Amino acid sequence: MAPIITLTTDFGTRDPFVGAMKGVILGIAPGARLVDLTHEVAPHDVVEGALALEAAVGFFPAGTIHLAVVDPGVGSARRPLAIHAGGQYCVGPDNGLFSFLLGVPGWTAVCLETPAYRLPRVSRTFHGRDVFAPAAAYVAQGIPLGSFGPPVTDPVLIPWPTARRQGDGLVGEVVHADRFGNLVTSVRAADLEALGPAEALVVEVEGKEVGSIVGCFADIPAGGAGALVGGSDRLEIAVREGSASASTRARRGSPVSVRKR
Amino acid sequence: MAPIITLTTDFGTRDPFVGAMKGVILGIAPGARLVDLTHEVAPHDVVEGALALEAAVGFFPAGTIHLAVVDPGVGSARRPLAIHAGGQYCVGPDNGLFSFLLGVPGWTAVCLETPAYRLPRVSRTFHGRDVFAPAAAYVAQGIPLGSFGPPVTDPVLIPWPTARRQGDGLVGEVVHADRFGNLVTSVRAADLEALGPAEALVVEVEGKEVGSIVGCFADIPAGGAGALVGGSDRLEIAVREGSASASTRARRGSPVSVRKR
Amino acid sequence: MAPIITLTTDFGTRDPFVGAMKGVILGIAPGARLVDLTHEVAPHDVVEGALALEAAVGFFPAGTIHLAVVDPGVGSARRPLAIHAGGQYCVGPDNGLFSFLLGVPGWTAVCLETPAYRLPRVSRTFHGRDVFAPAAAYVAQGIPLGSFGPPVTDPVLIPWPTARRQGDGLVGEVVHADRFGNLVTSVRAADLEALGPAEALVVEVEGKEVGSIVGCFADIPAGGAGALVGGSDRLEIAVREGSASASTRARRGSPVSVRKR
Repeated sequence: MAPIITLTTDFGTRDPFVGAMKGVILGIAPGARLVDLTHEVAPHDVVEGALALEAAVGFFPAGTIHLAVVDPGVGSARRPLAIHAGGQYCVGPDNGLFSFLLGVPGWTAVCLETPAYRLPRVSRTFHGRDVFAPAAAYVAQGIPLGSFGPPVTDPVLIPWPTARRQGDGLVGEVVHADRFGNLVTSVRAADLEALGPAEALVVEVEGKEVGSIVGCFADIPAGGAGALVGGSDRLEIAVREGSASASTRARRGSPVSVRKR
Repeated sequence: MAPIITLTTDFGTRDPFVGAMKGVILGIAPGARLVDLTHEVAPHDVVEGALALEAAVGFFPAGTIHLAVVDPGVGSARRPLAIHAGGQYCVGPDNGLFSFLLGVPGWTAVCLETPAYRLPRVSRTFHGRDVFAPAAAYVAQGIPLGSFGPPVTDPVLIPWPTARRQGDGLVGEVVHADRFGNLVTSVRAADLEALGPAEALVVEVEGKEVGSIVGCFADIPAGGAGALVGGSDRLEIAVREGSASASTRARRGSPVSVRKR
Repeated sequence: MAPIITLTTDFGTRDPFVGAMKGVILGIAPGARLVDLTHEVAPHDVVEGALALEAAVGFFPAGTIHLAVVDPGVGSARRPLAIHAGGQYCVGPDNGLFSFLLGVPGWTAVCLETPAYRLPRVSRTFHGRDVFAPAAAYVAQGIPLGSFGPPVTDPVLIPWPTARRQGDGLVGEVVHADRFGNLVTSVRAADLEALGPAEALVVEVEGKEVGSIVGCFADIPAGGAGALVGGSDRLEIAVREGSASASTRARRGSPVSVRKR
């Protein structure tokens, strides 16, 4: 079957940067199926890019190639990588974007050095088009990772936000505010299950109680706030028909806690 | 030929929600061709989603599958539907999104209940990914609607904005402001034709005259306002090189009338 | 191989205009691969559309069809065109959108008149869907340009921003501010090379020095400003981890100069 290449960048959709990358890909791998994950990662925000990838990568079939370019270090000494991990391929800069896939042993990574698998002319400002898009396309064409360059055993990892037990509760942080203003947190469904029945728990953001844990958005009273396990298996804080982000003014890094009532 | 699946949501394009849905679809229906209609429906605005679908659905070939998720009731008792109407398939929540296709008899609808045609684990917050995307993909794979669940004969319908005769004119309302600030109204080309020659008609928004009816945008004097039949066969109010939405401050529901000069 | 059709418009992505165009295309050319370049050209801004096309077209394989609709004159006497130039096809209004491809002899152009290659009903407000999308799809199906209508030998050209020598330096202008706030200018890499070593040059915007010319973004000191040759081979002005557009308040047309230190 034709390979799938997903694209994740901070390039936005107003400029034709992503379009140029797609032209390069289709020139090399005419049968590739292209899927945009997001191009609206905040400029240079590697953590936001990594969180977007983490939320989507697992829903793609094995063998999908995830091309991700959030690359403040473009043109500097940072290495360009291709990675095979968990049955999926990743192509992008060595800055931590793919950290979440590298926690489980068994991955392999290479540095993209082979000139034949880059554009003939490589700019110092747009490796998304000149280095990463061709690499993803050649991976899609079946070129083995080892042909792209030497192995990399020490890719950059970014600290990944988690939650920790504190007393009989949990302490974590906000990792993202989504389009609906829902605050996605570093607290996972599994963290919560270890605490016992959700009905007995209450959630705080920046030390202020926001409500209890419900099953779905429609369970939150109109205009009220609550928390629930969202689609990416993380605790989220939501305001029914409103924005938890706007009403709490919390943002990435804001402390979140879960405690027994 | 490979089936087409269109996607319409209020998920925005910043978060990877739509990307995850596409991963699920391509895992089940690898040959599906995916076309985004819009992901910028205002959050939870079912009427805006329905209007977007109405403007585009008729331009797709027969057999296209329209996956639409504007779903404030996700996780509650609202039914998940698949519909066959007018030669097209629709998949989404039972909240009126597809009302405009259900006015003509001959449609069939089912409630999506068969576990084999959902993801193995269904969250209570993201049925777009866990219920609707798989359903659309299995429809694309040729699974007959009857296999998804029991028939639904009473889908939710939303009141659909129309225009009515008043004296020798018409009274309707604004239904949408598009990107150009053009005000799309509930007055249809056919409604206007019944009034006689367009040259003799004048259009008002919120009781204020905006101008006469012209043939195309270029017929409106520079900086001036006018009305014309737009691409979706509805009367639209436009300001040449400007925004009718900004200059009139009208919005969905604002009264519109057409009268003889 | 299945033909590629790119799409460039000022339609935005909130309204389903682009979706309707894609439905029309896939109804005629079911195998076409669709790639969005951008739909966020500023409304009616033909120059911005042309610059977006110029930055991306060259990265697509020969035979790609570029469908571009920034069309303030829709419904008026402006001609609808199909062009073959530089191995690529372009389809869109005759208003200068494709000027950058017409500087080199050898192109051919036709006026889109043949009714069989339009939708059966052509509105006066949405030629993107009714005239240009079908034309692009029929080109993708292999219909020769000559079948669409009579030749056009005098397509509209827009003045294309360039740079000129002044003393031992260069004078040009800002042509675009991209998503990162980088100011793309009319000064080309080749213009700069003619001036001698980049280290000896300094760049001014609106008469104010912004810095020297470096190799990549990471070479600009944190919080500082500089200039570099960007991905489209143009001189760009950038602020490291900031926005040159915001800090200089320059915009398209703002004067830019390069002089020896």
